[in-house]
Amino acid sequence: MRKLSYEEILAERPSEEELNKLPKHKIIVILDNIRSTYNVGSIFRTCDSSRIEELLLCGYTPHPPKKELEKTALGALNTVKWQYFKSTNEAIEYAKSKNYKVFAVELTDNKRFYTDINKDEFPLAVVLGNELSGIADNVIDNCDDSMEIPMYGIKHSLNVSVATGIILYELCRKINS
Amino acid sequence: MRKLSYEEILAERPSEEELNKLPKHKIIVILDNIRSTYNVGSIFRTCDSSRIEELLLCGYTPHPPKKELEKTALGALNTVKWQYFKSTNEAIEYAKSKNYKVFAVELTDNKRFYTDINKDEFPLAVVLGNELSGIADNVIDNCDDSMEIPMYGIKHSLNVSVATGIILYELCRKINS
Repeated sequence: MRKLSYEEILAERPSEEELNKLPKHKIIVILDNIRSTYNVGSIFRTCDSSRIEELLLCGYTPHPPKKELEKTALGALNTVKWQYFKSTNEAIEYAKSKNYKVFAVELTDNKRFYTDINKDEFPLAVVLGNELSGIADNVIDNCDDSMEIPMYGIKHSLNVSVATGIILYELCRKINS
Repeated sequence: MRKLSYEEILAERPSEEELNKLPKHKIIVILDNIRSTYNVGSIFRTCDSSRIEELLLCGYTPHPPKKELEKTALGALNTVKWQYFKSTNEAIEYAKSKNYKVFAVELTDNKRFYTDINKDEFPLAVVLGNELSGIADNVIDNCDDSMEIPMYGIKHSLNVSVATGIILYELCRKINS
């Protein structure tokens, strides 16, 4: 077993032009007032890698142009289609107008796991909330459904960029299965 | 649909004593010279949430006691069983001595996806490498196999704490399926 060289790895990546011709996974990601530029940069990288439709940055979520974000996104700002919305509910309306079913990634009385999403529920949007307070109540009210990641330990939440990665890759796995 | 209150969420969490009685997912996580305390703290949180057996911190990977790590791990330092090893290869030998099959999470000529792991390959250990250089070649040489996360975009890697989350939750899903 041999680690690929940097040249071999780069040779397998598409160009921006080639990338634009590839079909995207029918997922929109909506960020509700995320505080940390580091988390948003990491989410940009994950959105590039999972090739989703759009990333909607809402409220005080850091958004381009911003130097620190460029640093943490490591080049993914150009390849992910993104929009800024002043309010998260406007972003949800936008996703609904495109016939996306909107899921809050949150602990609700709904208690539905992220692994239980059905293929016929795509296209879908996932809303991820603030690092401390989660998704605002008046935003939850506008979501169609919710999904949660099982917590097997003592803590009740994951880092928001980690949660985004787990959700997006499971949704991609489902779409491609 | 209603967001759970903080009290409802906490009421569902086990105590440390209860947690210690629960069976763990048969996974060991090995960190090969991770640079960022922020990433290691986030990985501690994910290891708690996915309730894995052990986290092995190797080389210059930040490890307790360390104030900044306590801050970013948000209380997960006490609930995750961890050990420090000077060299990653010693940690791999330790995992092998416990009959864990060791997988490099890396792009290799093996080209096996993380979703293709079979249930009979547990218990297993996953090695995650440095943010810039990945896993060292002399560490790869000691791994039994490799797994990679598909990259659908232009970039060839994810943030290491995000990659750890994607891998651990897919392995948990497999174990519980």
